[in-house]
Amino acid sequence: MTTDPSPQLWLYDTTLRDGTQREGLSLSIEDKIRIARRLDQMGVPFIEGGWPGANPKDVEFFWQLREYPLKKAEIVAFCSTRRPHSTAKTESLLQPILNAGTRWVTVFGKSWDLHVTAGLNTTLAENLAMIRDTIEYLCSQGRRVIYDAEHWFDGYKHNQDYALQTLETAIASGAQWLVLCDTNGGTLPHEISQIVTSVISHFSLAANQQPIPLGIHTHNDSGTAVANALAAVMAGAKMVQGTINGYGERCGNANLCELIPNLQLKLGYSCISEHQLNQLTETSRFVSEVVNLAPDEHAPFVGSSAFAHKGGIHVSAVERNPLTYEHIQPEQVGNRRRIVISEQSGLSNVLAKARTFGIELDKDQPAARQILQRLKELESQGYQFEAAEASFALLMYEALGNRQQFFEVKGFQVHCDLVEGKETNNALATVKIAVNGENILEAAEGNGPVAALDTALRKALVNFYPQVATFELTDYKVRILNGHTGTTAKTRVLVESGTGYERWTTIGVSPNILAASYQAVVEGLEYGLLLHHVPLNLENL
Amino acid sequence: MTTDPSPQLWLYDTTLRDGTQREGLSLSIEDKIRIARRLDQMGVPFIEGGWPGANPKDVEFFWQLREYPLKKAEIVAFCSTRRPHSTAKTESLLQPILNAGTRWVTVFGKSWDLHVTAGLNTTLAENLAMIRDTIEYLCSQGRRVIYDAEHWFDGYKHNQDYALQTLETAIASGAQWLVLCDTNGGTLPHEISQIVTSVISHFSLAANQQPIPLGIHTHNDSGTAVANALAAVMAGAKMVQGTINGYGERCGNANLCELIPNLQLKLGYSCISEHQLNQLTETSRFVSEVVNLAPDEHAPFVGSSAFAHKGGIHVSAVERNPLTYEHIQPEQVGNRRRIVISEQSGLSNVLAKARTFGIELDKDQPAARQILQRLKELESQGYQFEAAEASFALLMYEALGNRQQFFEVKGFQVHCDLVEGKETNNALATVKIAVNGENILEAAEGNGPVAALDTALRKALVNFYPQVATFELTDYKVRILNGHTGTTAKTRVLVESGTGYERWTTIGVSPNILAASYQAVVEGLEYGLLLHHVPLNLENL
Repeated sequence: MTTDPSPQLWLYDTTLRDGTQREGLSLSIEDKIRIARRLDQMGVPFIEGGWPGANPKDVEFFWQLREYPLKKAEIVAFCSTRRPHSTAKTESLLQPILNAGTRWVTVFGKSWDLHVTAGLNTTLAENLAMIRDTIEYLCSQGRRVIYDAEHWFDGYKHNQDYALQTLETAIASGAQWLVLCDTNGGTLPHEISQIVTSVISHFSLAANQQPIPLGIHTHNDSGTAVANALAAVMAGAKMVQGTINGYGERCGNANLCELIPNLQLKLGYSCISEHQLNQLTETSRFVSEVVNLAPDEHAPFVGSSAFAHKGGIHVSAVERNPLTYEHIQPEQVGNRRRIVISEQSGLSNVLAKARTFGIELDKDQPAARQILQRLKELESQGYQFEAAEASFALLMYEALGNRQQFFEVKGFQVHCDLVEGKETNNALATVKIAVNGENILEAAEGNGPVAALDTALRKALVNFYPQVATFELTDYKVRILNGHTGTTAKTRVLVESGTGYERWTTIGVSPNILAASYQAVVEGLEYGLLLHHVPLNLENL
Repeated sequence: MTTDPSPQLWLYDTTLRDGTQREGLSLSIEDKIRIARRLDQMGVPFIEGGWPGANPKDVEFFWQLREYPLKKAEIVAFCSTRRPHSTAKTESLLQPILNAGTRWVTVFGKSWDLHVTAGLNTTLAENLAMIRDTIEYLCSQGRRVIYDAEHWFDGYKHNQDYALQTLETAIASGAQWLVLCDTNGGTLPHEISQIVTSVISHFSLAANQQPIPLGIHTHNDSGTAVANALAAVMAGAKMVQGTINGYGERCGNANLCELIPNLQLKLGYSCISEHQLNQLTETSRFVSEVVNLAPDEHAPFVGSSAFAHKGGIHVSAVERNPLTYEHIQPEQVGNRRRIVISEQSGLSNVLAKARTFGIELDKDQPAARQILQRLKELESQGYQFEAAEASFALLMYEALGNRQQFFEVKGFQVHCDLVEGKETNNALATVKIAVNGENILEAAEGNGPVAALDTALRKALVNFYPQVATFELTDYKVRILNGHTGTTAKTRVLVESGTGYERWTTIGVSPNILAASYQAVVEGLEYGLLLHHVPLNLENL
């Protein structure tokens, strides 16, 4: 480990290139620009934008960024070495790279002899010429080059001498960074550590103690991508490549949302400012919104469960001394402590939870005991508020005499008629509600009974509360309680609703799956109205 | 690293205890038993079953297992040390532990001085007395004790001497294993490595080179749980604790589905047999079905994307020489290579699966390709047969021209009428089926629409097949596919049916939750009739 008190590390984000290799993830040009700007704000110095030429979208992306450039980050174009037996100058693949107009270009080349002979069908010498010619040409055109040594660790294990020759060639041709890639993701931390150490010592001897600028690029196929990158940094690498939320091909790339806090808060490296680190959780969720993938609730550092605590004694202890139960302060990465309301809840959980909704309750206040009592009652019926925080908030407001009644539920009917062979799946729902004493009856069809109920309810409400048009159901989960009794068991439904950025979850429980669904949908609409209609007056509480 | 060519490691699974600390995960006794049996089959030697007494469900679980014990695995009861200033003999918490009747008990105690004084509000000396008294008492009752040193790594960093005293006390009192726990999950691999090494050398000096049996228990709050456990093993730990799919509190526990292949295939340790390792992917998916959480498609080793390759040159290269693009052979962990664009066959999977139903298919037999084709079609619609083996069997019999038609489904109607305030929850179902060409119309009420459908169907069948009276629905699970689109998404329903001892699971998929439920219930009855009416003649296949 270095002795410098806060040595600098360079982050290199490849969400926009390697991240998009993930199955099911695809980005529009606008999406890519939004993510690039967010990474720029976060203080990531290198942002790999794509491979212009390999993808027409990427050509356009670089053009758009030239018109409205990023503030501080370097946007990097990515490409391969020239093809065998051609010249870089005449290589058509390299023209779009130069046209992208970036200051930095990342060139990847083969390190593993087997990939040269069996993959490229060329000679080991020609591969070295391809590396040399490509880098020299790009440098001659005023570019700064980062060299990605593809399959480096496997190549090194199979033919150490040749692998080292590829790096020597890259550095001699003008590359400013050498990045060691574990492309197949099969290497473990102790091997990374040994190999990076020996690469550094090889170049120190060769170049009279001149430090060479090494980077690390790891994949998660062994479940150790983050640990691998940390091992490389501790062995002397100065650049770390990764993606937001670890998106990437197969099992993903090293996750920057895990790497940055580990490097900065635990190992004392300097990557981004403290203030930028405070935006990490928001950035993680922003990117997951843009790519349209549900955030991982259990993700280290940034997941909504990362600092969740259960149980009474535990909760009072964590509030007295967070250090004893939390490895870092959640606020350092922009996350927050969350008190999980569950069967084991005591009064201290309820008070702590209320506080997260901005409600200061005293443990001697009757409402506090009343909330706890109601909670226990509902839990014994099968309710579970761990994940249904919006329903819990409604329950609190009710106990405090502060629950706004936007509408009253009177009942519903559902009819499904399925004839075998006809895939029409007709479901018809009728709902009856009252708003300000006025009864409203609405009906709707749907692709299944829950969709029909949801549609009917919105139709009934939208004339009174136009904002319900902006709410949408974003997730729907069903769990059967006491599975032992089969279809007569109780059903617990969780409904997640949202507008663009906010999300809230509500719960319904009933032996009738449709009744449970209806209840959760109704509370989801009610909570949305609470957020977007009448701001709760906390003075009255 | 040890020089023994294939040194033994002991796996310790805590899915049923620490795994259930995950938010939103809860298991019935039946679920716990199914998972325990699967882990037993997989060759996991220690299975932590729960904390009897802390949870009434766990008491029942241990009782049920005593009646029908596991084949090879030791089922372990978990508990804390006795409370301060009492005696183990009179400690009420320990009675349910002894009553659980296991040979092994895991006792956890405090290692970190701060937790003793601030958490337990007692003295450091009393904590040592609690450890000693509890372990000695359990040993005097014929139990073998595993000692879990909670918060070990943080405790060691804060007060090394005291932390070591707790371990010395545990071993002197008769504990057979000392397990070092990174309870808050904040430790990084290099620290684990240093601390485990120094603990081993401390005890080697103290005990004249007697090796002490150390275990490791890590959490994923830093994203390095797996690397941490590997670091401990390489430093000399001999027991590894973790959970299937890494389920656990906050960010989860060390994932056994990543640890086992890393330890066995990469580091050369011996944990389970080669054949058992081949079941890893299936076990991972089985457990995710039982706990009703979507499997992580990008999970290392066992995810459906873990060995996915995109088209083109890459694919032909990987087929020529898989070693160049895959860190292990997917079959070693029961997974398979998947070619993303050109949906490649899993014919060998189908043949293997057929074999589990006693059907020997040849890969050149037209029925084999037909089954595969149908399977792919259904999978693309959202069907998944990992846990729905009875539906898969019906599909096979159909392709082989051997599916018995006990009845024909013609259609159904469901009507629900719920008036707010009346908890009658009236659901009325009408079903139409044909038996031997005769149309039958039956109606039934139920406590929810699925129960009504199930009842109507049994009423229609029981006159023809009296044995349906002995079948019961034992579990019912619902998962929404593409949760992102809310209530208009597809629904996948799994229904478990059974008689006294047998259990079988069927599946239904539809945008309409009632249609999906109906389909699964219908196939559940059909498979029951197959088992109990006309024994399948395997000679004809």
